[in-house]
Formats: sequence, structure tokens, C-alpha cells
Amino acid sequence: MDMDTVVYRRRASRITIFAQLFGILAIILLLIWLLHYREGIEYDSPDGYRVFNVHPLLMFMGYIFMSGQAIMAYHTIPSERSTQKFMHMLLHLIAFVLGIVGLCAVFKFHDMARLEDVFSLHSWIGIGTFVLYGIQWVIGFFTFMGRAPDVTRFKIAPWHIAGGRALLYMGICAALTGLMEKYTFLRLNSILRYGEGRLMNFTGLAILLFGVFVDLSVGLAHYV
Amino acid sequence: MDMDTVVYRRRASRITIFAQLFGILAIILLLIWLLHYREGIEYDSPDGYRVFNVHPLLMFMGYIFMSGQAIMAYHTIPSERSTQKFMHMLLHLIAFVLGIVGLCAVFKFHDMARLEDVFSLHSWIGIGTFVLYGIQWVIGFFTFMGRAPDVTRFKIAPWHIAGGRALLYMGICAALTGLMEKYTFLRLNSILRYGEGRLMNFTGLAILLFGVFVDLSVGLAHYV
Repeated sequence: MDMDTVVYRRRASRITIFAQLFGILAIILLLIWLLHYREGIEYDSPDGYRVFNVHPLLMFMGYIFMSGQAIMAYHTIPSERSTQKFMHMLLHLIAFVLGIVGLCAVFKFHDMARLEDVFSLHSWIGIGTFVLYGIQWVIGFFTFMGRAPDVTRFKIAPWHIAGGRALLYMGICAALTGLMEKYTFLRLNSILRYGEGRLMNFTGLAILLFGVFVDLSVGLAHYV
Repeated sequence: MDMDTVVYRRRASRITIFAQLFGILAIILLLIWLLHYREGIEYDSPDGYRVFNVHPLLMFMGYIFMSGQAIMAYHTIPSERSTQKFMHMLLHLIAFVLGIVGLCAVFKFHDMARLEDVFSLHSWIGIGTFVLYGIQWVIGFFTFMGRAPDVTRFKIAPWHIAGGRALLYMGICAALTGLMEKYTFLRLNSILRYGEGRLMNFTGLAILLFGVFVDLSVGLAHYV
């Protein structure tokens, strides 16, 4: 490894540090919210709200946070490119699987509470993003892990990168509309405490800034 | 102008067509929503809701749509680069001014209805994004329209581009959380008609896809 590579890697990782800080902050705030202010987290609970709470936790800590880690893998994993690439694929797969469990939780809650599925803008954006994310993973897998010829890889790579970035922000939009839906629901039912409202706002900001810094770590990788 | 430039420009404009389609669709849906389902749009009305409705209209049609046009100006305006650059600056300025009027409308509504300002996640994201957008415009103006030396321009350009893209998506997040807040409010107060709910969802999707295609038109400009 020559000096240029070392300097490049060290510089790129500066932005990923901010992404990690906001990502971890968002997880901590989410946990405080769900465990202290809300009903707790349990998939097999008779209390529908404890089942529901699995959804925001896994959609962020599982899906968005892990896919952000996958995106940053080329800068954060101190290893050879082939290992980074394998981890990029694997982390996205883990994100997808955890996302499925998180989706199951909200459908289970809807069943328990006899609520309609896939009704709100949040659910439309969320489901749409998740389906496209799965398609992007499959295309990526067969193109870059498979035996696709170089010319195909070069053609698909910019779409893979630009599409991945769009999907990252679409996931952030899904998370923030979800938080906003719950926030308005709690507030209008007068069961939102002042401190809880502030905590939810800071959670949303941390999630947004995680997404922004993951994006910047890719967009500025060649410059900083 | 050589053939390469012509082909490049024609290809880049393919993606901007999708952005324009979704942008215009979002404006039409917004107008149907505010004029047919809601109370109408009027800044100087004694009806607080008519004043409020100026806010979603100008924040999208003024701020987000115009700033998207500014971002795409390098592909959509068939002129010399210096003209494109001037239009990029001017369209962003128009977006900013219309955004200020849109913000005034919601503060005026809050005064009339005696509601607290800057309370929800939507307002935090919106205000934060708008302030950073103003700062980005000022830095961009003095760097690229002013007499900054080339070395400064080359240093700032990637930050200007990556930061601008992040601000575009932050604006989209603000719009979608705003729609989601209003949606939940109307639904829980049982004043959301079924058709109106669907219309709001499609409006949100059109706004999101406008943002995605504006981003892709920049991210893929050198490839498609």
C-alpha cells in the first residue's frame, strides 16, 4: 500500500466518523424513546404496542444503519478491496433481512389492532423503497459478485452508485415520515409529553444527519 | 460546439425529462388538493387555513421545484456555460425568496390560530434546511460569481455539489414530513376523505421522485 492510498483512506474516514456519531446517537435516542417513553420492545408480546416498537427499531438500527455501514464499507474496513466488496454485499443483505423482520412487526401490529395495511404516505414510501432496495441488491449481486463482463460492470456501476444514494435518501424519507406520523398521532391524542416530543425531534435530526454524512462520505471521497 | 457536447447534452436531458414530469405532476396534485379538497389559497384571508395553504404551495412550487430547476440548469438551458451558471444562481435566488414568503405564510397562520412556532420535526428540518440553503447560496455566490482564485473554486466545487445534493434531499424530507403531519392531523380528526388521502400520498410520491430524478440528472450526467 503506497502513501497516497493511506492518506486517501485516512481523509475519507473523517466524514464517516460524523456518520457513525449521528448513527449511534440515533440508535441511543430511539432506544431511550421506545424503552423509557413508550411501551418497550418485544416481538412476541400480547401488547400490540410492544410489537409495533420492534418496527422503528429494526427499520433504523437494522435496515438504514446497516445499509449505511455497507455504503461506507470501502472507507471504513481496513482491508483489501475484495474483502471490502464482500462486506458491502453482506452488510446490505443483513440490512435487508433485518428490514423484513421490522416490516413483519408492523403487519403483525396491524393484525392485532385490526388496522388497515399500507395506507399512509409513510407506508407507500417505505414499501416502495424496500422493494427497489431488494431489486438493487439482486442486480448488484449478479453484476459485481458474479461473472458479468467488465463492460457490463462499467455500464452498471454509475447507476448502482447513483441508485444506491437515492435509495439511502428514500429510506431516510420513510423513517422521518414514520416518526412524523407517530408524533402527530401521539400529540393529537394528548399522550405526547413535552420531553418525548423533543426527543423524537432530535432522533429524526440524527437519522437525517446520518444519511447526509453517509452520502457525503461517498460524494466527497475523492476530494477530502 | 462539437458532436460530443451535443450527444452529451441530449443524453443528460433524458433524465431531466423525468424530473420535469414528476415536478409538474406534483404541482398539479398540490393545486387540486389545496383548491378542491382544502380551503383554497390566499395570503390576505381572514380564514387562517387559506393563509396556511400558501405554505405547502410555495415551499414546493417556489422553493423545491425552482431549486431543482436551478440544479438542472446546466443540462436544460440550451445556452453557453456562463449563461447557465447565471441562471443557476438566479433560479436558486428566486427559490429562496419564494421560500421566505412560504415561511411567512405559516408563521402568519400560527399567529392567527395562536399555535406555537417551530415545534414539530417537520419545522425543525425545514428551518434548518432553509438556513443552510441560504448559507450555501452566499458561499456559492462569492466563490463562483465573484473573483475567487481558481484554486479556491476547485476546492469548494465538490463541497458545493455534494452539499447542494444533501440540501435538495433535506428539502424533500421537510416536504414529506409536512405532508405526513397534515395527513395524520386530518385523518385523526376524521376530516380526511378517502380520495383526499390517496391524492396526498400520490403528491408525496411525485415530490420524492422529482428529488430523486433531479439528483440522478447530476449524478449520471457523465454516463447516460
